[in-house]
Amino acid sequence: MAPASSTTMTSSAELHRQVASLLVVRCSGFASDSQRRYPRWELTNGSLHRLLGEGVGGVILLGGSAADLRLRCEQLRRWAGGPLLLCADVEEGVGQRFEGASWLVPPLALGRLHASDPAQATALAERYGRCTGRQARLVGLNWVLGPVCDVSNNPSNPVINVRAWGETPEVAGSLASSFLRGCQAEGVLACAKHFPGHGDTSSDSHLELPLLPHSRERLQAVELPPFRAAITAGVASVMTAHLQLPALDPDRPATLSSAVLTDLLRHDLGFGGLVVTDALVMEAISAHHGPAEAAVLAFEAGADLILMPADADAAIQGMVQAVQSGRISRERLQASLERRQRALAACAAPPAAGKALSADLLDELEQLVSPEEQQLSRNLLELSLETTPARGTLPSGPGVNLIRLDTQLNSPQLPAMAPALLRPAACGYAPTLLDGRSTSPWSNDPAAPLALDRLGPGPVLLQLFVRGNPFRGSAGTEEPWPAVLNQLQAAGRLAGLAIYGSPYLWQELQPLLPAGVAAAYSPGQMPQAQAVLLERLGLAAAALEGGFTD
Amino acid sequence: MAPASSTTMTSSAELHRQVASLLVVRCSGFASDSQRRYPRWELTNGSLHRLLGEGVGGVILLGGSAADLRLRCEQLRRWAGGPLLLCADVEEGVGQRFEGASWLVPPLALGRLHASDPAQATALAERYGRCTGRQARLVGLNWVLGPVCDVSNNPSNPVINVRAWGETPEVAGSLASSFLRGCQAEGVLACAKHFPGHGDTSSDSHLELPLLPHSRERLQAVELPPFRAAITAGVASVMTAHLQLPALDPDRPATLSSAVLTDLLRHDLGFGGLVVTDALVMEAISAHHGPAEAAVLAFEAGADLILMPADADAAIQGMVQAVQSGRISRERLQASLERRQRALAACAAPPAAGKALSADLLDELEQLVSPEEQQLSRNLLELSLETTPARGTLPSGPGVNLIRLDTQLNSPQLPAMAPALLRPAACGYAPTLLDGRSTSPWSNDPAAPLALDRLGPGPVLLQLFVRGNPFRGSAGTEEPWPAVLNQLQAAGRLAGLAIYGSPYLWQELQPLLPAGVAAAYSPGQMPQAQAVLLERLGLAAAALEGGFTD
Repeated sequence: MAPASSTTMTSSAELHRQVASLLVVRCSGFASDSQRRYPRWELTNGSLHRLLGEGVGGVILLGGSAADLRLRCEQLRRWAGGPLLLCADVEEGVGQRFEGASWLVPPLALGRLHASDPAQATALAERYGRCTGRQARLVGLNWVLGPVCDVSNNPSNPVINVRAWGETPEVAGSLASSFLRGCQAEGVLACAKHFPGHGDTSSDSHLELPLLPHSRERLQAVELPPFRAAITAGVASVMTAHLQLPALDPDRPATLSSAVLTDLLRHDLGFGGLVVTDALVMEAISAHHGPAEAAVLAFEAGADLILMPADADAAIQGMVQAVQSGRISRERLQASLERRQRALAACAAPPAAGKALSADLLDELEQLVSPEEQQLSRNLLELSLETTPARGTLPSGPGVNLIRLDTQLNSPQLPAMAPALLRPAACGYAPTLLDGRSTSPWSNDPAAPLALDRLGPGPVLLQLFVRGNPFRGSAGTEEPWPAVLNQLQAAGRLAGLAIYGSPYLWQELQPLLPAGVAAAYSPGQMPQAQAVLLERLGLAAAALEGGFTD
Repeated sequence: MAPASSTTMTSSAELHRQVASLLVVRCSGFASDSQRRYPRWELTNGSLHRLLGEGVGGVILLGGSAADLRLRCEQLRRWAGGPLLLCADVEEGVGQRFEGASWLVPPLALGRLHASDPAQATALAERYGRCTGRQARLVGLNWVLGPVCDVSNNPSNPVINVRAWGETPEVAGSLASSFLRGCQAEGVLACAKHFPGHGDTSSDSHLELPLLPHSRERLQAVELPPFRAAITAGVASVMTAHLQLPALDPDRPATLSSAVLTDLLRHDLGFGGLVVTDALVMEAISAHHGPAEAAVLAFEAGADLILMPADADAAIQGMVQAVQSGRISRERLQASLERRQRALAACAAPPAAGKALSADLLDELEQLVSPEEQQLSRNLLELSLETTPARGTLPSGPGVNLIRLDTQLNSPQLPAMAPALLRPAACGYAPTLLDGRSTSPWSNDPAAPLALDRLGPGPVLLQLFVRGNPFRGSAGTEEPWPAVLNQLQAAGRLAGLAIYGSPYLWQELQPLLPAGVAAAYSPGQMPQAQAVLLERLGLAAAALEGGFTD
């Protein structure tokens, strides 16, 4: 080949690598392809190895224990041969996704504590961020996809709910900023999301494109302040929302809108860090644009990093062509590459490969959660627990422990030894579990919706695991818990109520409770939250019963 | 201190270490205490580290992925400072317990294949053992607690069932021997269990002490031959059963009986390898003897290794005192120590610590299952699949996919993307799941036991996950599946039947099926078994649908 052509080739290969470095692809935290929980979305090891070799610069991980993840991150760094952005949706502590690390109470718990004790809430939010950042670093991540900066001001929002740090712009902004300061002080990047604000939507952008009809003034007053606060606090990255905001851009969703990402975020808010899209595979985007065009549109709009393109090769190819054709300027590309470099430079060094896989690795993992962090988990749960003013105690069994949850299958909330199962059992309450795949527990009588003949005899303890699906819009139709409370009370069978997750369901049901009924609410759903709540209802730690093998 | 006293002290400390080396304690395969699934039975890291430091010589592991286990075994070896026996109940492939490795069809599948093709069954049993041994070695184990040498000749046996290699003494002995040859050829010890034969019991020794009323002649004819075969094949260890056998010992269960362990196993059968007790925490033993006395009695009876004493410190102390008092002779102790040494010498070297934690570790784990082993898993499933002679196809939905399983909680059989869920869903069959914690699906009408008004409309596909709980004794009372089949057929709603696990339930239900109804049986319950079975029923691989995050 002629030198000119060869130069072009080299330049094209280099361009390919540059563009690839701006992609964040998804894989499982497990070692083998057969362990992937979501094979449609998680790359095979073969594809992943190849793409990292071609320069793909970021990976989002889901699945696996903290130990699995630690090994996996090391492997990805090795496959990449260069610095990588390694991130995960660990908004509620690394243990929310990777077992063995700290799983903390959802952020909104601190938002609610803020009303009575703002100083304590602020200090705890920073420790929450420290804990998340420190453990993220120890397992090999350098980028936490949090804090949520959306304001939880719409109880029927199906996706934000307790993930938000506050119910007002001020509280959300203040606590989200404390979180990100703590996280970033550990050398791990944080990410303010979902710009310009996903709190006041009542549909789910995983499934469709929600619309936020508010005026620019309203957005300035409510949605944007938490992002301004996060930017002032030095947040390293901002994630875009798949939202239609007609007041800002009549044509394009925020993720693809230069009015939103460039004019508003870069210019008006002065954000100089990394802008990352939310996952482009989400229906809100992928139903309307092919993988190449979606990536190019997002980049043109002002995004630096492309998260989870539906097809990584197509996205790279599309971006390369857009640069070669002049649709995307070399300067614009260079600016994004530089922002990525700056972000990486701000990260603590990854666990050194030698140290990483030294003989001490498992001891390190065993001590992943420090005693202070253990105390933090427990403090957060105790501070956020709510009970009725006139607290009752559970009548003695035999009775029914009726547990409602989204799904029983591989539920991290409900391992076989979960306190929500064991402690009532120790008092004679036999578990009945309801989820979307259960035999129907419902009668045809709206005034007595629970078919009591399908349950065992005796008093009924209701334990409702509900979050991100706040019931307000559906209570009385789909899952009629208010009517059930009245029904059980009328039948003399209401033993107690425990709500794990949504404060809005608690606010709705609490006024219906007769005095003296044992009832409590925890924003957390994890086993530790159950233990703290049930202890308050008088159910002490059960002997750890159960078969000794599967 | 005076020299004499000092000598005594040293000797006592040495005795303590010697005795400790004969214990096999239990821990989780996970890194942190908080990840233990059975904290009542699994030592904390603190206790484990201390006990290994004091010389405890064996560990049985449960829980964690293959990657977790690999790290864990390395850690235990380091804590021990000496060679360790590391074992697990991986009778059906390492993947039965540790995700990421091969999870094979239960042994009885080959026992049944043996009737039509003994040569193929024998060859496959050896490859089964090879696969299990090889992967055990790669994850750090050196001792597989299999093969089961019990004969599955009692369909109401609640604990053996498909774990056995055959329904006759000849087949069980022949295939168990092939398995153990394959396993031991990989440098991993095998273990014939549960001596002298647990096949013909109908109660569960985890809960009580079963009694086997057979004469010595009957035992010689039925129960013992598979153990004779295993011993001839060179099995490295034999595990005792917690069984009362009045014909052999009117007073003591096999685990504690010198008539069984010494007279029969050592002398009559000439077994010179390691004798290990079944877990001493099981109620059959622990309800009758304290932890110290149980260990001493088992050792006195002829056991070399004490598995899962209820209290390891007490067991060591009890054994030390028994030696010091002369109740156990020094020679007897020495013989057991030497047998343990010989067994360890027969093991392949553990993965070298350097290699073990080298940068290649995760690549190694990723390739844990070889292409041949992948093929073996699939072959075993295809060979063991059974269908009705006149095979039907599933009517088109909408319909009900009624799945019966022991528990939905953390069921490895039913991850959210399991074929048993996804494939019928792709044809319009909505899942309804039943387990012991479900709202009752039963009416009060024995002739029409299923309360159809609690299910959705349309044809019903029944998928029954049943094993080790064979229904024969309870069908028609507890779970009336024969009546359900007739009921659905009479209502014109029987779409199909899939049975995963027990051949005895299949044998019972198959004759009740009308011609042309889609029906099949697989001994396996894992997702791959579901895929193979449902494909045979005409349900092709579904697009891997589902949300892309939890």
